[in-house]
Amino acid sequence: MSDTSCPLCLEAGGALVFQGEKFRVIRASEAGFPAFYRVVWTAHVAEFSSLDLDDRAVCMAAVCAVEQVLREQLQPTKVNLAALGNVVPHLHWHVIARFEGDSHFPAPVWGSAQRPINAAAVAALAARLDLVDGAIARALSV
Amino acid sequence: MSDTSCPLCLEAGGALVFQGEKFRVIRASEAGFPAFYRVVWTAHVAEFSSLDLDDRAVCMAAVCAVEQVLREQLQPTKVNLAALGNVVPHLHWHVIARFEGDSHFPAPVWGSAQRPINAAAVAALAARLDLVDGAIARALSV
Repeated sequence: MSDTSCPLCLEAGGALVFQGEKFRVIRASEAGFPAFYRVVWTAHVAEFSSLDLDDRAVCMAAVCAVEQVLREQLQPTKVNLAALGNVVPHLHWHVIARFEGDSHFPAPVWGSAQRPINAAAVAALAARLDLVDGAIARALSV
Repeated sequence: MSDTSCPLCLEAGGALVFQGEKFRVIRASEAGFPAFYRVVWTAHVAEFSSLDLDDRAVCMAAVCAVEQVLREQLQPTKVNLAALGNVVPHLHWHVIARFEGDSHFPAPVWGSAQRPINAAAVAALAARLDLVDGAIARALSV
């Protein structure tokens, strides 16, 4: 259930926030989007619908737990969820807190920038992420 | 649970493929991506985590049913799932069959085009969507 050529089988893929048996949560490092988390499924599976019903529920409970912590701690304008995997076909869910003033809002983070990065706002958000990381780890440890 | 200024409360948002009580499935009309479906939640809710546990399961079962039909009928290179809602904050899941030769692959459909649209490939794919629509409707009617 792992693939020696897959970067998400070989490495965490970001700063490790929570490590479970079936999934991990990492914080990504994407310019302009400090509150960008990923739920990475442990087994090397490409498509969400390849999981059995129990694992789908486990996976979405993790995605929801991260989303809820982001909402509670950061009050984002919107949370964006996505499982794409075109480049790395190993199941991972992007969970991204979006804010009206971020560089791309309301476009997707993969779309065109709408304005320059607000470095002060990004730094202020980044300063709160230790608390967010801790809250995510606690939410998933119960 | 509806909002008179919300386009997804007012209109289907695309070609109606399946209408259930809690959600509908529509086929969108996005240039270059004929196999682009959306699962639209009926109630005006912005965030997936605002649904209760039962409704989350109902919603993701619908998303998975659409994904599985796309995989069975079209053998896409990858399926892309996303709930963004920055522009229309009414819960809807994009379920998109992606192909190596499509205009944006491996970029997200919201990213930069990688090559021109292959009109013949798009037309050939579009010609198969009546069957896909029917299979989705059957999968969700059981």
